Amino acid sequence: MTKLDEHAIIAIFQKKIGNKKFVSEDVELFNIGNTNIVAKVDTLVQSSDIPPQMSLKDAARKSTLACVSDFVSKGVRPEFAIISINLPVHISKFQICQIAAGLASAEKEFGFKIIGGDTNSGKEIVIHVCMFGKAKKISKRGGAKNGDVIFATGNFGYTSSGLEILMKKRRSKKSFAKKAINAVLKPKIRQSFCQKNFQMFSSSMDSSDGLSTTLNEMSSQSKKKFVITKLPAKKEVYEFAKTNKIDAKRLILDGGEEYEVIFTVSKSNKDKIIKNAKKSKTPILEIGHVTNGRGVFFHTDEKQIKIKDLGWKHFR
Amino acid sequence: MTKLDEHAIIAIFQKKIGNKKFVSEDVELFNIGNTNIVAKVDTLVQSSDIPPQMSLKDAARKSTLACVSDFVSKGVRPEFAIISINLPVHISKFQICQIAAGLASAEKEFGFKIIGGDTNSGKEIVIHVCMFGKAKKISKRGGAKNGDVIFATGNFGYTSSGLEILMKKRRSKKSFAKKAINAVLKPKIRQSFCQKNFQMFSSSMDSSDGLSTTLNEMSSQSKKKFVITKLPAKKEVYEFAKTNKIDAKRLILDGGEEYEVIFTVSKSNKDKIIKNAKKSKTPILEIGHVTNGRGVFFHTDEKQIKIKDLGWKHFR
Repeated sequence: MTKLDEHAIIAIFQKKIGNKKFVSEDVELFNIGNTNIVAKVDTLVQSSDIPPQMSLKDAARKSTLACVSDFVSKGVRPEFAIISINLPVHISKFQICQIAAGLASAEKEFGFKIIGGDTNSGKEIVIHVCMFGKAKKISKRGGAKNGDVIFATGNFGYTSSGLEILMKKRRSKKSFAKKAINAVLKPKIRQSFCQKNFQMFSSSMDSSDGLSTTLNEMSSQSKKKFVITKLPAKKEVYEFAKTNKIDAKRLILDGGEEYEVIFTVSKSNKDKIIKNAKKSKTPILEIGHVTNGRGVFFHTDEKQIKIKDLGWKHFR
Repeated sequence: MTKLDEHAIIAIFQKKIGNKKFVSEDVELFNIGNTNIVAKVDTLVQSSDIPPQMSLKDAARKSTLACVSDFVSKGVRPEFAIISINLPVHISKFQICQIAAGLASAEKEFGFKIIGGDTNSGKEIVIHVCMFGKAKKISKRGGAKNGDVIFATGNFGYTSSGLEILMKKRRSKKSFAKKAINAVLKPKIRQSFCQKNFQMFSSSMDSSDGLSTTLNEMSSQSKKKFVITKLPAKKEVYEFAKTNKIDAKRLILDGGEEYEVIFTVSKSNKDKIIKNAKKSKTPILEIGHVTNGRGVFFHTDEKQIKIKDLGWKHFR
């Protein structure tokens, strides 16, 4: 194992390349000609991102969903994609067709167009997606203001529970297992709600690296304290955690691979955003507020606990 | 081994995605807003693209050079890049620094700017480069006309000879070995010449998949016969081939990993292009001409031999 964690590795690239922007936003924003281009690359690697129970069709869908989710969290519509694929030489025609079918249906589901790509041989399946759109302005990770309300677009803990069920054969109620496994295999995103409402967001970020990572990153880039008063999770996640003697907070805060969006809005926009969410049937949850200071804290009536960034890190 | 070759695999993606453009040009061209964006993705995979003798600094340079070469062959200036990197968990800090240093020096050498990226863990090193620029018009693979002259920007056979020397310990003269190995480890591109003269090209293509592949692709997309009258190779490549009982034509035509550009110009532009090449010290070589018909043929005084597409194919 390398002794460097992901932060240390990114720091090396930032220093050598002299660009602090190497991995600092969900998407890259740059000008070509008169156009503000938004671009995002995301890589799905078989050994680390595809559970054995996931079909290659779903894996291919997920490879594009990861980019779409980043676009959505910034309020940008994904328009085009270039797909680059590594395939092991022993792959079957059926498997290749599955990957292609997953990409084709993802185009329709998320509304982007694949304009090109390439194929390479490699040791494992790697699907690399480069997605493009345009935007005058994006909703940034930093930008939360004192008094802003923090929202999540949905509940957490299903994906990590699903992975525990699939990979470690944990016990659970049938109905919960179905929901949790579905969250792993066919994650959903909140595309329409975010694209329609992002102009009210004072800051926002995709949660695919884990809720604790997202909250810490937004707090750090906003230079504000994020006070969490309610974790976005249903009773059934706590029950599953109890049955299997897992810390429920770890499932909710640090699981990752969830594609909910965390966003902040000013108090004056709070009622409007709740109304709009109801209209589009998006189950948004108020989870806390922004205040002076630094760091992310979970406040209950009795105590205040620091929420550390313990989400998904490569190389750990 | 899969029974499908690269063409068959690409055909599956083209069919399922319903886009014939999946792998049909050196670069992708599309409009966002009012801007004509040029983009190219290229993937360097450790197990298939990095010989053990290549430093990771040179490998990182080569990962970007492959994209730059595609831009150059179309007459487009590379402006921005997003770099996505898979690293095995056991990689050392020194190795990561080497990759970062290679990317940083490539930025300067080729004149693009890295605007972002991401890092992932994986089974092997994979450097994925997505490069951007803008262009009203590019020089296409198809477009050669009857009577056009076919040029190569330099001589072929060094890279494939170099790989034979490195991987199979072939015998060779010291001076030739040095040149050939250098062609493998530090390939050169003809950036300035192509960017200044591409408007005279009636068609053009990068030769990194092998000269025979490039000629066949250009002939096929132009719907013309390409008559080759002189192979772009020096005597020393034939001598090396003879010493080691290798077919010299295979080294010259099918080696690949060469970043020369093949281009066609009308007869009326021939003198001007030769003059411009001399000025920029680019050793362009006239290798044949375009005529009615199909396919690529090598014509000598006595006979005419079909040049088949036997360049680099993944999955073979």
